[in-house]
Amino acid sequence: MNPVEIIIKKRDGLELTDEELRFFINSYTAGKIPDYQASALLMAIFIRGLSPKETLTLTRTMLYSGTVIDLSHIPEPKIGKHSTGGVGDKTSLIIGPIALAAGVKVPQISGRGLGHTGGTLDKMESIPGFNTKLEIEEFKKIMKDPGGLIIGQTSNIAPADRLLYSLRDVVGAVPSIPLITASIMSKKLAEGTDGLVLDVKSGSGAFMQSYEDSKKLAESLKGTAEGFGKKCVALITEMSQPLGFKSGNWFEVHESIDILRGEYIEDMCEISFALSGAMIMLGGKAESIEEGVEISRKLVADGSAFDRFLAIIKAQGGDLDTVKYPERYPVSKIRETIYAENSGYVSEINGYEIGMALIELGAGRMKKEDEIDHKSGVYLKAKVGEYYKQGSVIGYIDCDDPDKLESAHKRILGSIKQVEDKTEKPVFIKEVIY
Amino acid sequence: MNPVEIIIKKRDGLELTDEELRFFINSYTAGKIPDYQASALLMAIFIRGLSPKETLTLTRTMLYSGTVIDLSHIPEPKIGKHSTGGVGDKTSLIIGPIALAAGVKVPQISGRGLGHTGGTLDKMESIPGFNTKLEIEEFKKIMKDPGGLIIGQTSNIAPADRLLYSLRDVVGAVPSIPLITASIMSKKLAEGTDGLVLDVKSGSGAFMQSYEDSKKLAESLKGTAEGFGKKCVALITEMSQPLGFKSGNWFEVHESIDILRGEYIEDMCEISFALSGAMIMLGGKAESIEEGVEISRKLVADGSAFDRFLAIIKAQGGDLDTVKYPERYPVSKIRETIYAENSGYVSEINGYEIGMALIELGAGRMKKEDEIDHKSGVYLKAKVGEYYKQGSVIGYIDCDDPDKLESAHKRILGSIKQVEDKTEKPVFIKEVIY
Repeated sequence: MNPVEIIIKKRDGLELTDEELRFFINSYTAGKIPDYQASALLMAIFIRGLSPKETLTLTRTMLYSGTVIDLSHIPEPKIGKHSTGGVGDKTSLIIGPIALAAGVKVPQISGRGLGHTGGTLDKMESIPGFNTKLEIEEFKKIMKDPGGLIIGQTSNIAPADRLLYSLRDVVGAVPSIPLITASIMSKKLAEGTDGLVLDVKSGSGAFMQSYEDSKKLAESLKGTAEGFGKKCVALITEMSQPLGFKSGNWFEVHESIDILRGEYIEDMCEISFALSGAMIMLGGKAESIEEGVEISRKLVADGSAFDRFLAIIKAQGGDLDTVKYPERYPVSKIRETIYAENSGYVSEINGYEIGMALIELGAGRMKKEDEIDHKSGVYLKAKVGEYYKQGSVIGYIDCDDPDKLESAHKRILGSIKQVEDKTEKPVFIKEVIY
Repeated sequence: MNPVEIIIKKRDGLELTDEELRFFINSYTAGKIPDYQASALLMAIFIRGLSPKETLTLTRTMLYSGTVIDLSHIPEPKIGKHSTGGVGDKTSLIIGPIALAAGVKVPQISGRGLGHTGGTLDKMESIPGFNTKLEIEEFKKIMKDPGGLIIGQTSNIAPADRLLYSLRDVVGAVPSIPLITASIMSKKLAEGTDGLVLDVKSGSGAFMQSYEDSKKLAESLKGTAEGFGKKCVALITEMSQPLGFKSGNWFEVHESIDILRGEYIEDMCEISFALSGAMIMLGGKAESIEEGVEISRKLVADGSAFDRFLAIIKAQGGDLDTVKYPERYPVSKIRETIYAENSGYVSEINGYEIGMALIELGAGRMKKEDEIDHKSGVYLKAKVGEYYKQGSVIGYIDCDDPDKLESAHKRILGSIKQVEDKTEKPVFIKEVIY
């Protein structure tokens, strides 16, 4: 087969055969097709799109470029979850223990933060000793007991995706629904689960800002999961303000502990329980998402979800005292109060800007090599729909470096829009796609 | 400026600014932008297109990446000619001497054959001693006297085009009207002429097979030439059969000599005289193309065009006896007769297939490194519109190698379509765009 003919076919908007896609991707992964041909194909795919069949083949090829974990030795239902990423999004930390307490096993292969959204691995690593680098054998052992974990992508999982993703990034081919679908699903399908719950974010803090694009992405992801015989439910959720009050690494672990111990933070809890409810339903432990939500609330209230959280921390070597006594965690040198700049109803909190402020504070990274300051973060109690008088306290910022803090503080204030007319609290769960 | 942002802009169908195009092309030519980013931009340009303004800027940037020859020391009109390339197309060898005899200077920077179309340089090099590699100073000297030449592209001319062309070739981004326009014009504008005659081929033997595409290309080339203040006439000419009877390198030189000595081969002569007529008009030596055509016929009939052909051969070191006594040229080991396979009217001779047969014979090259057998070629007297009985002689093939000959012979027979109903002789000049 000739790579140029494959590029030309896609350039002209034609559908590629399974053989053509497999040949191109496998040859590229093996170093037999150069970057300049792969980037031309990626650009052609970006503009011309891929059919659902092509998306499935691309995903399958990327998936089988590496290891696909076999969890068939575990008789219980195994359900995965994927979020397209948002600011303050700590649902992964909450829903895993809840689903586990309900009898559903939850293998979570997560990523690091890059750009304006945070990464679950960085958050978990704020717990001293917590090891996110497990080999496949350890993974399988922990999946038997306690049955849930949060680890990083091993080098064996979807190497084709790693290569293609780096290339997409430097040739302007990132926000393409079929390419995003294949990238996400080639990693999620490697987890060896029976089903998958998708949390597709929509709004200013999400990669897909418009509702239409989020819905298209949700449908593409769901269609691909089902093409592989996986049960799948997709939720389109609100991301026009950071989730919960706290953003930052340890900040988010701390808030998750609070929630697992019974604190109620409306947007975080509603979205988390809907996701864990869907996982419980897919795992066959509830008839409906609604029933799954009720089970979730109960498992938090009776302490069993927090108990499973402790079991996961212990299995992965994390310090249990840090989780039991979060108030003892080291604090930043400076804590600066945030005051409302104006009087009025909050109409928007731009998640992208908050994410960029977190990077300035040291809580996120712009380049892969950047180091993380786990204890830095932002607490913002203000939410869309609430009224604040000018000068009233709406939160605080923790940081060691006064210069970084000043610049981040400005950015945070700039991200909050206040208006005179009463605004509505957003709908947290915009749509559930069964 | 950020190359990724420029790619994204074109990917989304937006117009690039002069600064953005200049930055990208100049940085790429300087080796500061990698191939994989350039190929992504080329693919985005291929699919999204370029506006006339962008095409002009791209052409200008590629033109000024190298030397632009200054012929202002020559007071006479200087007119260039460009053909988009066809099979058996030897007009360059005929029209230069004619225009020169009419008092118009003709600098021709030509290319080599690649793929199914021949190259003027390869043809001229079938004349022993003929030197196509001249430096700028020799070029200028010959342009003073005799005033016409046929040379290859020096390494100083449009180096950006050379780099981009090689990349387009391997990433499936060749037949794009704006990219072809910028590639052609960045080289033709470097010739230092006052005006340009374009021969845009249309039909099965041309790069642009449909009439609509040929017309779009003609208009894009003409608009760009005029954007640089050059007078320009574009002819759209027939290429649904090879031009003339002979295809191959020396074969075509021989036929050109015959024509310059007064032989009349209808399609070759009508197209050549129209082109030289247009050059004579643009050079101010005739009021109209029609008058230029009449002058052309006269200059061939009285021997002055052939005299100028000899002067060019002499100036570039070619052996004059070869041109004066073409019958003495070495011949191939085998000459095989071609017989009509069927009885019927010829309805099509697929130029692409004839071109590919020539490559098999050794008269063309598939890879740049391939060597040329100058004496091999095809003589095909059959023309669209003529009737041939099965088994009647329609031509011959010259080649040293019997195996190559057999395969090429099959291809040639397959390229000729005969039908029962009477067919029409094609119109050779489909349109003249002033």
